[in-house]
Amino acid sequence: MAAVRDLSSIFGSRAWIERLWSSIADKGRAFASVPSEARPPLQRARLLAQALLSGRGEASGAAVARELHAVLQDLDAADRAAFYRFLATDFPPDPDQLREAARAYLDDPSPEHAAQLTTAADPPRQELLRRMNVSLGGTTALVAMRKELLGLLHEEPALKPLDSDLRHLFGSWFNLGFLQLRRIDWQTPAATLEKLIAYEAVHEIKGWDDLRRRLAPDRRCFGFFHPALPGEPLIFVEVALVNGLSASIQPLLEPVTNERAAAAAAARADTAIFYSINNCQDGLRGVSFGNFLIKQVVEELTAELPALACFSTLSPVPRFRRWLDRQLTADAPNQALLSDTERAALSDGTSDDEAALLRDTLQEDGWWTDPVRADPLHAPLLRLCATYLTETTDRSADPVARFHLGNGARLERINWLGNVSSRGIRESWGIMVNYLYEPSEIEANHEMFVRDGTVVRSLAVDALKESWQPKRRPARRRG
Amino acid sequence: MAAVRDLSSIFGSRAWIERLWSSIADKGRAFASVPSEARPPLQRARLLAQALLSGRGEASGAAVARELHAVLQDLDAADRAAFYRFLATDFPPDPDQLREAARAYLDDPSPEHAAQLTTAADPPRQELLRRMNVSLGGTTALVAMRKELLGLLHEEPALKPLDSDLRHLFGSWFNLGFLQLRRIDWQTPAATLEKLIAYEAVHEIKGWDDLRRRLAPDRRCFGFFHPALPGEPLIFVEVALVNGLSASIQPLLEPVTNERAAAAAAARADTAIFYSINNCQDGLRGVSFGNFLIKQVVEELTAELPALACFSTLSPVPRFRRWLDRQLTADAPNQALLSDTERAALSDGTSDDEAALLRDTLQEDGWWTDPVRADPLHAPLLRLCATYLTETTDRSADPVARFHLGNGARLERINWLGNVSSRGIRESWGIMVNYLYEPSEIEANHEMFVRDGTVVRSLAVDALKESWQPKRRPARRRG
Amino acid sequence: MAAVRDLSSIFGSRAWIERLWSSIADKGRAFASVPSEARPPLQRARLLAQALLSGRGEASGAAVARELHAVLQDLDAADRAAFYRFLATDFPPDPDQLREAARAYLDDPSPEHAAQLTTAADPPRQELLRRMNVSLGGTTALVAMRKELLGLLHEEPALKPLDSDLRHLFGSWFNLGFLQLRRIDWQTPAATLEKLIAYEAVHEIKGWDDLRRRLAPDRRCFGFFHPALPGEPLIFVEVALVNGLSASIQPLLEPVTNERAAAAAAARADTAIFYSINNCQDGLRGVSFGNFLIKQVVEELTAELPALACFSTLSPVPRFRRWLDRQLTADAPNQALLSDTERAALSDGTSDDEAALLRDTLQEDGWWTDPVRADPLHAPLLRLCATYLTETTDRSADPVARFHLGNGARLERINWLGNVSSRGIRESWGIMVNYLYEPSEIEANHEMFVRDGTVVRSLAVDALKESWQPKRRPARRRG
Amino acid sequence: MAAVRDLSSIFGSRAWIERLWSSIADKGRAFASVPSEARPPLQRARLLAQALLSGRGEASGAAVARELHAVLQDLDAADRAAFYRFLATDFPPDPDQLREAARAYLDDPSPEHAAQLTTAADPPRQELLRRMNVSLGGTTALVAMRKELLGLLHEEPALKPLDSDLRHLFGSWFNLGFLQLRRIDWQTPAATLEKLIAYEAVHEIKGWDDLRRRLAPDRRCFGFFHPALPGEPLIFVEVALVNGLSASIQPLLEPVTNERAAAAAAARADTAIFYSINNCQDGLRGVSFGNFLIKQVVEELTAELPALACFSTLSPVPRFRRWLDRQLTADAPNQALLSDTERAALSDGTSDDEAALLRDTLQEDGWWTDPVRADPLHAPLLRLCATYLTETTDRSADPVARFHLGNGARLERINWLGNVSSRGIRESWGIMVNYLYEPSEIEANHEMFVRDGTVVRSLAVDALKESWQPKRRPARRRG
Repeated sequence: MAAVRDLSSIFGSRAWIERLWSSIADKGRAFASVPSEARPPLQRARLLAQALLSGRGEASGAAVARELHAVLQDLDAADRAAFYRFLATDFPPDPDQLREAARAYLDDPSPEHAAQLTTAADPPRQELLRRMNVSLGGTTALVAMRKELLGLLHEEPALKPLDSDLRHLFGSWFNLGFLQLRRIDWQTPAATLEKLIAYEAVHEIKGWDDLRRRLAPDRRCFGFFHPALPGEPLIFVEVALVNGLSASIQPLLEPVTNERAAAAAAARADTAIFYSINNCQDGLRGVSFGNFLIKQVVEELTAELPALACFSTLSPVPRFRRWLDRQLTADAPNQALLSDTERAALSDGTSDDEAALLRDTLQEDGWWTDPVRADPLHAPLLRLCATYLTETTDRSADPVARFHLGNGARLERINWLGNVSSRGIRESWGIMVNYLYEPSEIEANHEMFVRDGTVVRSLAVDALKESWQPKRRPARRRG
Repeated sequence: MAAVRDLSSIFGSRAWIERLWSSIADKGRAFASVPSEARPPLQRARLLAQALLSGRGEASGAAVARELHAVLQDLDAADRAAFYRFLATDFPPDPDQLREAARAYLDDPSPEHAAQLTTAADPPRQELLRRMNVSLGGTTALVAMRKELLGLLHEEPALKPLDSDLRHLFGSWFNLGFLQLRRIDWQTPAATLEKLIAYEAVHEIKGWDDLRRRLAPDRRCFGFFHPALPGEPLIFVEVALVNGLSASIQPLLEPVTNERAAAAAAARADTAIFYSINNCQDGLRGVSFGNFLIKQVVEELTAELPALACFSTLSPVPRFRRWLDRQLTADAPNQALLSDTERAALSDGTSDDEAALLRDTLQEDGWWTDPVRADPLHAPLLRLCATYLTETTDRSADPVARFHLGNGARLERINWLGNVSSRGIRESWGIMVNYLYEPSEIEANHEMFVRDGTVVRSLAVDALKESWQPKRRPARRRG
Repeated sequence: MAAVRDLSSIFGSRAWIERLWSSIADKGRAFASVPSEARPPLQRARLLAQALLSGRGEASGAAVARELHAVLQDLDAADRAAFYRFLATDFPPDPDQLREAARAYLDDPSPEHAAQLTTAADPPRQELLRRMNVSLGGTTALVAMRKELLGLLHEEPALKPLDSDLRHLFGSWFNLGFLQLRRIDWQTPAATLEKLIAYEAVHEIKGWDDLRRRLAPDRRCFGFFHPALPGEPLIFVEVALVNGLSASIQPLLEPVTNERAAAAAAARADTAIFYSINNCQDGLRGVSFGNFLIKQVVEELTAELPALACFSTLSPVPRFRRWLDRQLTADAPNQALLSDTERAALSDGTSDDEAALLRDTLQEDGWWTDPVRADPLHAPLLRLCATYLTETTDRSADPVARFHLGNGARLERINWLGNVSSRGIRESWGIMVNYLYEPSEIEANHEMFVRDGTVVRSLAVDALKESWQPKRRPARRRG
Repeated sequence: MAAVRDLSSIFGSRAWIERLWSSIADKGRAFASVPSEARPPLQRARLLAQALLSGRGEASGAAVARELHAVLQDLDAADRAAFYRFLATDFPPDPDQLREAARAYLDDPSPEHAAQLTTAADPPRQELLRRMNVSLGGTTALVAMRKELLGLLHEEPALKPLDSDLRHLFGSWFNLGFLQLRRIDWQTPAATLEKLIAYEAVHEIKGWDDLRRRLAPDRRCFGFFHPALPGEPLIFVEVALVNGLSASIQPLLEPVTNERAAAAAAARADTAIFYSINNCQDGLRGVSFGNFLIKQVVEELTAELPALACFSTLSPVPRFRRWLDRQLTADAPNQALLSDTERAALSDGTSDDEAALLRDTLQEDGWWTDPVRADPLHAPLLRLCATYLTETTDRSADPVARFHLGNGARLERINWLGNVSSRGIRESWGIMVNYLYEPSEIEANHEMFVRDGTVVRSLAVDALKESWQPKRRPARRRG
């Protein structure tokens, strides 16, 4: 009797799985779903994976998956890498079916043949990963697996098929429609809060007192959560409620003196400053949430605090200094990274004297703490940063700028010495930027940036540039 | 500037989407994400789908998805079918890439080429469906879409690629690891409870009073829920707490007389009878939960009520009467559906006299209410049913039996007149069956059934058959 | 060693409790906290009560309380009444201490002596009742006890001390600060919803379909809940979202035809009609929540539906017909219930002819369905009802009017044939009334009504009266 | 018109409140519920209290209560004390009614007269406090008020009537039946967890890392919560899961090295050590929860961890050193604090040499860190502590011992150098004690301790004493 099984309806190519299974060397244990604990752990992990996929152990699939995760956790790194290699190579689609479907499509590329090819190309590995997800904590383990895998890819490109399948699955599982936006505050469980401390990478949280300040009554923090990763933020954003655009990060990070006063200030605030956005799960790289998060948070804040009229970031410019260094090193080979336009722009605007001034002063330690030395750099550096943010379109372009501009924000203001921490100096000579989210313009800004790379910006940003670029075509302006 | 976008990391073949987009006739509206309300609704739905996929409208993707669902809901059935046709045919994988990947694989079927083919074969349609999921209620709408689609497939096989993609997505989204087992009782929201009334298809629930009886203190009801379909059971099972195996459904459906007594009875019960299992979502056909549900419910019940020693179903035999009719119509062409073994078995055991008796009596209306006429049928019918359940392996085999046997249950008992409702008589001349879930045997039973179709059964079931099959090989017995 | 016990700090007069205890006849069992099950149940209940209070059983107080409730539940009504008598008489304050404190106060009525008298007068019965509350379900049992007790008070005034103590405790326990306002809708557990069906006394709910209509998208329902009575509403109010003041109850009770249309109507509604308010717990008689409920619901609705501009009731006039009957029966002795003013008012305005018309027509069955007979009554009946609601201040006054006017509502409109159900005809010849809650006037209206009984009403109500009362002093008007 | 009001049903003596109200000097503002902000704050607080009680402001009672709390919070300490004086003296029961009820009771002390006196003695102050509870946060404010009040009572005994009323109310409101036992762990909101740090008074929690150790997988923490004080523990207990009775606190407070190992250890543990119990709310002094908490936690732990066989404390002996100092100072006047028995016991067992040894060594700093000096003290100090704990019955008796013995625990073991922190040395020369909760003996132990002060103890404790008390009567032994 050919047992007709529900499984076959989930994963069509049962015969192929059977053949895969039959090719396993260890015939003696083939029927036992959970291989003996006496085996070497890596071999045990392989057998568990095969048992899980074969469906022979299906009656207790969740138990097999749990056991597999436990074995993997105790493997050493080398054995785990070997297991990943096994996953990446030993679970390809059924070659006969795939060959046949490929030929049929080449003969006649109809939608039906395309669909058959899609089905035939679906590797058993994806089904195996789906079954590894069934045990409690399975999703957590798979996300951790991809995090480790990403660290190995460069050395071992043969692992790419596994990465590709994990990314495909995560793209489905972490669909924005399944995410839950939640406010994070002092009522949030400590187990979640300590993760903020661990994950905050933009402006470090120095322990629980600092954390409490980030969650004070004049702050808001929101994160996206997924039901299968309870208490584990995927991404979170920290917001300060203030009056007027913040030009500097330091005041936002100072300890709160009076919680009642902070609550009162929040009720009067007209501006929400998004000053830190952090992706938390390295294993979800390439599955993006940030755009959606900002928009939902704007909606939440608008509903809670009707007095808010302005939503803006206070953002770093992480690659400005690197870009500037290259400009100032005239003959360096990486000069080639710049487009002709940019080179022209730079030589147009920066006189030799100015370049010399920059070269000299920027080498001096602590110049930014000394107004006598810092003041002459004010105008040229802001001007150059404006150029960098509005003209650079190649690989050296700023990722933060691309993120917010792509989301429909406007480049609103460039702030002098907005972050004088060692990181701020190292990345951008202390410069910070406000990207403004104007709800009624988001769609149009986004379209312009996506279509032809137009960087929508304020008059003030253009003014920074105009002093030395009198002949440029009029840029689109807002505000 | 080529805007590097996060999107491209989710869905690689951006260039192809761009080309798809460019081929849209309605160039004039291409940049607007939300087409004018003045357009005919079907055309509007198409433009919205294209906008959603193109990413031009990404900045407000959730809004576009919501609008698309609203437009679809108001379409008439013919227009909606046209939209499904559009989805099934207009979003194939990039033909150039797919052709190239197919050729590379045919030349060299390496894991890398297989993985590239997998990626190339992933149709933009799946990404579009993922984006349609983002709006509130998106998952509900997509499940409803597939329900409607399944009704059209027979007439329009060209819709299959769309069905295939939906099933693939649902298989990922409704992964068992994401489901939540919840007890359903009188504390459950009415909005969920009324769905039990609607979805119960095995033993109809006749209004709220009957529903309350199903949830009385000596009953249990559990369902699987998914976070994206809140309050909407995917599948649910009804359990009666009794003493000893139930032989008949009627006592289980009688009104409860005394809730306190029912609670006391539950605490003393030694047996849990699973008397109704219902899949609720037609749109999730092919994504199975039943096996996993039963095992989790057994765990829940064991934890709550340690006195329980026996877990069994009381199940219908929906195709027994149809099978029997064919046996009794000797020369009918559908006789060919039987295997030789079965035919031999039948002719071995059923004398001509007996066959005549069955043919005559079964034609009489209400014979089951008259012991004089019913008694002579008792032994032969149970015997034939035992044969049917243990010997039939072809298309006429019982789906309920296959489900429980495939899950590792044992065929424990065949009950005479266990369901004398009109449905019970129509399906199986009133016979009902107990499938027993013995936790320590589930795995082995499952293996035997899957491997070679062995139907593990009790001595009592064999005894029913032995009276007329003295020479059969010894079957595997348990209990 | 004199064990210093925490108990003594809760309930000071330990010595007295010891003496109470010592006076128990059943010395042999004195140390056992839980008396033998062989005793007659009533005697067992008494011993349990004494054990509970004595504190000897304190180490397992909750268990003793639970046992006591179980025994009481199984007593017959006569024995339970005997137990109430026992509670009402056998747990008085310590007579020596109370006598001494009473004398001290009479000698010198200082605050200290008053406080000592308060303490001395606190009966051990209250402490016993507090301890009976400790078991799971204790509060429910005590509320049920008072409900039964209230039915016995008229026959047995000696039970009053027990009632007085229960009311005192409930006044503390059900303090408004401990109540939770919750919306009740179709997402509410069925166990709570079925209580709405049971408790609705103003406009009967005829089963689950009717209930669903009361909770449709254009309706709101809110209740007060107490943490110790989970799922059990103390009071609830039903609200209809409409446009303009509703004049009649019938349209509000009609089945909803289209839930989507109802939701859309709710979003556009400008008026919230409170058409039914029900106290649910007879055992909490004298502990009032209604006033607070209405105000909180107005706040909730304002927050949810900013389009709402008007909050009003559609209320019955339960005693109008009885009052009218007395007016029309000139020589009846209960005429004395009317004030001189009212009698004068009536004779002023109602001509003999009119009185005769009323007497004759009102006797005819179904006159309200026949315009020919009903129309002549329209003006006189509304006029008399206006008189009744604005002039009656004695025992015959309308309790619903007093409730809303005391809460600060305004008598806004008197509606002809607003409720033609048999109850509406029986109570008020079909008349219904709108009491309007105008947030800015509530405080002043309340003050006027409390201070001197001024019934704040609309011009329209005065207009009804003015046709026959040309010489009255100008009443305060609003709107 | 005499407006019949619901209020009168809550608080009978309306006329008296009216008269109270009329006697207020500030007639001009009498009708306004919320007095002008221009008034001096203390006067405003008084007027608000009167408005709240008078019911004139009842229509917005919650608002008046909230305003009153806000005004009180901003008063300085002296003004707040003046307000308490006002509450303690200005809201006595109606003197006429009380006098009359007192006389009636003295004439005839019937249950009815007692009940009338109870009602007449109920001061309006209690009703006022109940109404102050209605605003959001009202309960929190009243508990804080009593905390401050308790600090003033010693200086101002005239405030006692206010304290007495608050305690009476809290005794009702914080009835054990209304408390919720909740586990506190790393999933608990930070806002609650930081309160553990603040309230832990037995073994200080040194910041968040230390807190996390207290909540590690081999620890449990439970607290009682009240619905009106959300997130605010009333009392909490810390438990360590170990094997065998813990003799010393230091290992329990050490950092956890491995959370997985800790979880595994917890699953194997046979003993639960209650090593810290803390009352959190000073304002609830005299309302006791500890006894009930321990019993409920034993039930919770038994259900979660069936391997637990032993429930014991590891407790301080806070007054042992003080008692010992007095014994060693032979001629000191406080010698008189000892009973004859104790003095005899001491002189029986402690030779002059031993006393000299104790006097000399105990004066040396750090003797406990030096085995050469510490060892000779081991036997005498444990012996004396056993005497102290089993023989002392007067004011010098140990409060921790009385608490646990009164709850039915057994004095199980006295541990040498169980706590060598400065506090442990200061209180008890480092000695700690295990009190064992044996569920089957709790009731009997409790009875014996309450009846005649019998300290039930283990053989080991008696053995400590027997070495020098050969002639004592056999004590009751267990274990």
